Amino acid sequence: MTGALPHTLQVGLGERGYPIRIGPGLLARHSSYPEDLVGADVLVVTNEVVAPLYLDALTQALGRRRVESLVLPDGEAHKDLATFASIIDRLAESSFHRDATLIALGGGVIGDLTGFAAACYQRGISFVQLPTTLLAQVDAAVGGKTAVNHAAGKNLIGAFYQPRAVIADVASLDTLGDREFRAGVAEVIKYGVALDQEFLAWLETNLESILARRHDVVAAAVLRCCAIKARIVEEDERERGRRALLNLGHTFGHAIETATGYQSWLHGEAVAAGMMMAADLSARLGHLDADDLERLRCLLQRAGLPAAPPPVGGQRMGQLMAMDKKVARGRLRLVLLTGLGEAYVDAGVDDDALKLTLSLADAR
Amino acid sequence: MTGALPHTLQVGLGERGYPIRIGPGLLARHSSYPEDLVGADVLVVTNEVVAPLYLDALTQALGRRRVESLVLPDGEAHKDLATFASIIDRLAESSFHRDATLIALGGGVIGDLTGFAAACYQRGISFVQLPTTLLAQVDAAVGGKTAVNHAAGKNLIGAFYQPRAVIADVASLDTLGDREFRAGVAEVIKYGVALDQEFLAWLETNLESILARRHDVVAAAVLRCCAIKARIVEEDERERGRRALLNLGHTFGHAIETATGYQSWLHGEAVAAGMMMAADLSARLGHLDADDLERLRCLLQRAGLPAAPPPVGGQRMGQLMAMDKKVARGRLRLVLLTGLGEAYVDAGVDDDALKLTLSLADAR
Repeated sequence: MTGALPHTLQVGLGERGYPIRIGPGLLARHSSYPEDLVGADVLVVTNEVVAPLYLDALTQALGRRRVESLVLPDGEAHKDLATFASIIDRLAESSFHRDATLIALGGGVIGDLTGFAAACYQRGISFVQLPTTLLAQVDAAVGGKTAVNHAAGKNLIGAFYQPRAVIADVASLDTLGDREFRAGVAEVIKYGVALDQEFLAWLETNLESILARRHDVVAAAVLRCCAIKARIVEEDERERGRRALLNLGHTFGHAIETATGYQSWLHGEAVAAGMMMAADLSARLGHLDADDLERLRCLLQRAGLPAAPPPVGGQRMGQLMAMDKKVARGRLRLVLLTGLGEAYVDAGVDDDALKLTLSLADAR
Repeated sequence: MTGALPHTLQVGLGERGYPIRIGPGLLARHSSYPEDLVGADVLVVTNEVVAPLYLDALTQALGRRRVESLVLPDGEAHKDLATFASIIDRLAESSFHRDATLIALGGGVIGDLTGFAAACYQRGISFVQLPTTLLAQVDAAVGGKTAVNHAAGKNLIGAFYQPRAVIADVASLDTLGDREFRAGVAEVIKYGVALDQEFLAWLETNLESILARRHDVVAAAVLRCCAIKARIVEEDERERGRRALLNLGHTFGHAIETATGYQSWLHGEAVAAGMMMAADLSARLGHLDADDLERLRCLLQRAGLPAAPPPVGGQRMGQLMAMDKKVARGRLRLVLLTGLGEAYVDAGVDDDALKLTLSLADAR
């Protein structure tokens, strides 16, 4: 599955389509940034962790353009309207024009914030995603979801706004902490489990190379995830149907994150445990057998990911999921599996089966 | 040109297309609000001037839906990110869902704010424009420009986001102050002068009926303006080309508004004087003759609108326009006329001719 690097993949959304480039060393290479994608003026938005690592290399690679940078504090807590306003302030103070380009250099928080600012400044300027975490490379940077959080909910304020390019430098993952990298692997596994049995098998064969961050193997995995996501976004940009399948493990995972206060569990870890719960429920409904469950559990454990929820209590998890349901108006809709690699949306899950699955979160 | 009321006009933007309904009494009529356009839950955003006049009638017309309202203070000063956030806060606090609908009941400020909130809440919910000023009925409510102001510039933060319907109740114009109504007439005249010679002649014949606010004649004028604008928006939704022609008189007008501190001159009044200056400059360039100028001046004066700028100084106006140019990056681009009803964009205006036109703003 690995091939010549860098890989290029086109997201086919008509005049809003864009290329995704994947490979090691792209960030510091001038040719990664085609003239026609990047206007004369560039504002790089990044954070205090990423800036010391990559900002200089990026600025040099961009060459003789006017390049300014805005370094934000790190963390999800800053993904809010106030930080969004600070990006807009900077664009306005520095007299950036409609033909300016924003570059998001960082993980999902930076990408979501920068994308939303690009969507709104002068009713839309172009932006480039330069994701530096595995999670962002396979998920957040692709597909045009931009947003900031609100006290009442995650991603409550945002826009569907596609980037002009995504540049996924897999060498930038070398500086990620081990736990954060593995959390990204959870989303990679999710693509296989939800939508691509062949990819799942490939992951089982190549997991050690991925965990060792071999550039060619990681690039191949990122390419496959982006290809799956691109195909779905092309069909269903605004998540009215099939795009929801990418949320496998997320309803359970979201409840885990909320129950643990968004502190002790990384998003990818919660998704891993949530995916396992979705598989467990699918098995109770007769869709998966014990071998399927063990296969998934084994892969997650090999990746150093949790395959069970923390003991926050099944009843509590159920309540949190019901609140999610309230937000989504109406019935609880869960992404479940008819088989490995075959996700579907179930809007009429049997309550007793769900309770048994939730009891995995009971203290033992 | 008048016909059976209400008029309905379709804006053809594919799946983002929508109807514009124009006529007297639409606001209070249940049938103006089709089930398929308005979700179960509605938040009406309006201001303290409009609410006492129309909020009850609207709420009753909406029937047994869940209808809440948010009454904002009046005025352009409140068209900012803080007021935008207050709309989002209300939507979140009241647990409005993705299938909720915002209704903008008021003038351009309410429409711009509400539209931008609709564009961003949960990455986009539907909204209906219910414009209650002539200016909003012929301009702001149609075409999907939404925005809030920033200290560094008007409409600096916003989105192109189309409403699901525009309902222009011409009877609601009966409560407008005389000066505000006439300011709206300036934008009506603009459509004729910029793009539709036949409509210009019709306006010359029917101006008194419009000023007397005869519902059928006003509805006919609003219909024609909306039809012109819809045609242009269909061709050029994001103002990359032809849509700019709708800005006739606006670069001069904007300088007048800025020079007078946005207090003494209404937007429409500034556009009227600006349109006259654009015509003056077009005449200096040999495109219009003295008769054309007199014809336009006469129409503006009959409408009680200024046909000359205030004595803020030609040099000062030129400086303000150069700042606009800086914002637009590069050359000053002015919408001028090759004839009445025939606007074009001139990106290479002769400096001497421009100076002579600007001298109309010198103290005498």
